[in-house]
Amino acid sequence: MSKPSYSKGLVGVIAGESAICTVGTGQGLNYRGYNVNDLAEHSTFEEVSHLLLYGHLPNKRQLEQYIRRLANFRQLSTAMRAVLEQLPGSSHPMDIMRTAASVMGSFEPEDENPNNEKQRNNQWECGDRLIAIFGPALLYWYQYHKNGTKIETRTGPNDTVAQNFVKLLLQTDNPDPNMVRAVDVSLILYAEHDFAASTFGAIVTTSTLSDVYSSVCTAIGTLRGPLHGGANEAAYRLISQFKTPDEAEQGLLKLLKEKKIVMGFGHRVYRKGDPRSPIVRDWARKLSEIINTPYAKNLYAVAERMEQVMMREKKMFTNLDFYASIVYHFCHIPTDFFTPVFVIARTSGWVSHIIEQRQDNKLMRPISIYTGPDPAKTPYVPIDKRLERSKL
Amino acid sequence: MSKPSYSKGLVGVIAGESAICTVGTGQGLNYRGYNVNDLAEHSTFEEVSHLLLYGHLPNKRQLEQYIRRLANFRQLSTAMRAVLEQLPGSSHPMDIMRTAASVMGSFEPEDENPNNEKQRNNQWECGDRLIAIFGPALLYWYQYHKNGTKIETRTGPNDTVAQNFVKLLLQTDNPDPNMVRAVDVSLILYAEHDFAASTFGAIVTTSTLSDVYSSVCTAIGTLRGPLHGGANEAAYRLISQFKTPDEAEQGLLKLLKEKKIVMGFGHRVYRKGDPRSPIVRDWARKLSEIINTPYAKNLYAVAERMEQVMMREKKMFTNLDFYASIVYHFCHIPTDFFTPVFVIARTSGWVSHIIEQRQDNKLMRPISIYTGPDPAKTPYVPIDKRLERSKL
Ligand SMILES: CC(C)(COP(=O)(O)OP(=O)(O)OC[C@H]1O[C@@H](n2cnc3c(N)ncnc32)[C@H](O)[C@@H]1OP(=O)(O)O)[C@@H](O)C(=O)NCCC(=O)NCCS
Ligand SMILES: CC(C)(COP(=O)(O)OP(=O)(O)OC[C@H]1O[C@@H](n2cnc3c(N)ncnc32)[C@H](O)[C@@H]1OP(=O)(O)O)[C@@H](O)C(=O)NCCC(=O)NCCS
Repeated sequence: MSKPSYSKGLVGVIAGESAICTVGTGQGLNYRGYNVNDLAEHSTFEEVSHLLLYGHLPNKRQLEQYIRRLANFRQLSTAMRAVLEQLPGSSHPMDIMRTAASVMGSFEPEDENPNNEKQRNNQWECGDRLIAIFGPALLYWYQYHKNGTKIETRTGPNDTVAQNFVKLLLQTDNPDPNMVRAVDVSLILYAEHDFAASTFGAIVTTSTLSDVYSSVCTAIGTLRGPLHGGANEAAYRLISQFKTPDEAEQGLLKLLKEKKIVMGFGHRVYRKGDPRSPIVRDWARKLSEIINTPYAKNLYAVAERMEQVMMREKKMFTNLDFYASIVYHFCHIPTDFFTPVFVIARTSGWVSHIIEQRQDNKLMRPISIYTGPDPAKTPYVPIDKRLERSKL
Repeated sequence: MSKPSYSKGLVGVIAGESAICTVGTGQGLNYRGYNVNDLAEHSTFEEVSHLLLYGHLPNKRQLEQYIRRLANFRQLSTAMRAVLEQLPGSSHPMDIMRTAASVMGSFEPEDENPNNEKQRNNQWECGDRLIAIFGPALLYWYQYHKNGTKIETRTGPNDTVAQNFVKLLLQTDNPDPNMVRAVDVSLILYAEHDFAASTFGAIVTTSTLSDVYSSVCTAIGTLRGPLHGGANEAAYRLISQFKTPDEAEQGLLKLLKEKKIVMGFGHRVYRKGDPRSPIVRDWARKLSEIINTPYAKNLYAVAERMEQVMMREKKMFTNLDFYASIVYHFCHIPTDFFTPVFVIARTSGWVSHIIEQRQDNKLMRPISIYTGPDPAKTPYVPIDKRLERSKL
């Protein structure tokens, strides 16, 4: 019998329907119909998160309320702080994010709603709590292990997620507004991207009717890998290796010759370019000009050259992660916090998909092609007849 | 444009190749070629776990070594104990399992292996550590919050996973060997089941080249839902509601009339019956006879009647979860620990699939059908033009 054909990695396989986001449908990138360029230009992350979770852009009153709601959720409980203090300072920050989400499931569980599996009463609140707590939890852990300080994680009651994050990270009350806005825009761009692997993973978890914290843990763990969210950290590590644009060109050509994957380039669905990349590239350039040191200008020039070389040599384009990594570096974000920042943003998208999946759920359970030993030729062997064999 | 057709829930969709397990291929249920009936009759869980993870049944010396290896990993670190003490006694035990796996990722991270993405050096050790730690972590948390005691989680150096679990749960040095063997057999039957939702979720996480702890967290969170692992708890809650077989018959007919899903019945892939169910039913009957109280005999009789009624009325069969729930109850396992026991067993299958996926990886990223607002008709609305709208 010949092996049936199938689409490895589920390339092009339709796994469901969704009203949240267009990626690669020929309509550009839109969140609930709104073009991402407009959102990145005129909105804040809170407006986008509200749009994704609650289905519409908030008016002024609703936005103010929503910002205050998130700000209110920023206080860490004693137990949460105790857990964060126990996690080693050497941990991968994405492990901190995953554990923070997991313990939230114990501290503030989602309501069961046995009469209506399509909705759990506090599912939106759980989403907002997670968005609000991630930055504070990460930075509490960070400041505790780096400086031995137990920081207060609430800042002003009207601070946005971006403001709060930069304030806690840099321990300042007056962060540079350009940096705050750059982070804010990156959060908008990272907020949602349809059935990306992490979101798809969250949907698989949701499909057994599990709780929102479990699904978000799945998403975080999936985002962690370098083929997905981890790419922004990997991209920066690569870019920062090169001292000059010429060195970058040589180094890149060598990598391509060795058939290495260059992080921050390529995409499963986009074939011609990532619409988010020019927006974040503009921010990287702008920040390099504001900072205006030879170091910053050179870093941006190295990145630009890499973009040119990849296009010339492989017709490959930068994805969002490439220039986002430069933006984050310019905002003094430690490299291994790049993917955690992505978590904060994408939680709004993940939870929107979790809520949507519950409306019309079916267990996600595909099948496999069996390629193992033929059972008909594999009789049981009693233990004293078994030969010494080593690991697979 | 008409909507393209697709298979909701990925029913029948091939998502990859696997040499580990046959489910619904017409060959019965086999782990690496060995029939599960033989394994459940002649082997222990440790032999099965070794088979799944290391690719072959261990000989006597290897088995002894493997049992001691797992026993060695049972000690909880001070930090792990501190975290477990912080998690409320009211937590869902599956949240304890997920958090335990997540913090293990901080305490004992997987090696990075940048030169060989197909393998990480200590991936097997991580798997064994997780299998070893789950029972001790759960029961440490349980005894701490229930009785205020901080138990020693290592028992004898040659104790199996089943022995250790029953000893820690019941706080006895001499557990009933029938109960230990019943748990052991259930672990064998729960160890592996191809692309079940939890395993598929773990594969999605692995496909971004994330670490084994992230993938196992995904699997635990996915197993938690009542359409998957959570079914054994839900099944017991249902069965134990009925005082007599006749009452069960009436109750079940009512549920079916209301078109309710009856937990512990049905399966995505099996169409005629679950080959694991008769094995675990035999154990349920055997234990009911050993216990030999009217209560135990009646509970088994209620379950049997439910099986008959579902077959007669709906041609639906019991899956593994149905009688496993009775077995666990007879072994004095609290109802909300049923799915955590499933975790201990299935970790061997999950980690086998994670290791296999790394051998020939491709990012798991399907697509969706967009059903949301038409971007061409959704212009951006400035904030002071937005109307009051409530939640979706
Ligand atoms: C995102 C990604 C996983 C999508 O890949 P995919 O759809 O699974 O496609 P493949 O990985 O099979 O790539 C197809 C071909 O392009 C090449 N390719 C893809 N991305 C590449 C990259 N970033 N650098 C160099 N070559 C790349 C592959 O080597 C492969 O070449 P081959 O056909 O000669 O073997 C892939 O582009 C990648 O690994 N990019 C780098 C990681 C990254 O930036 N991720 C963030 C995405 S937003
Ligand atoms: C396992 C399960 C999710 C697989 O289901 P699936 O392949 O997605 O199939 P569906 O849920 O779409 O069920 C198909 C039909 O059978 C019915 N059905 C399936 N399982 C049923 C059950 N346990 N009790 C009553 N009816 C059931 C459905 O209601 C549906 O009927 P319909 O066509 O009239 O709407 C499903 O059988 C189930 O929910 N079982 C109970 C939970 C359980 O025991 N899970 C552990 C599995 S090992």
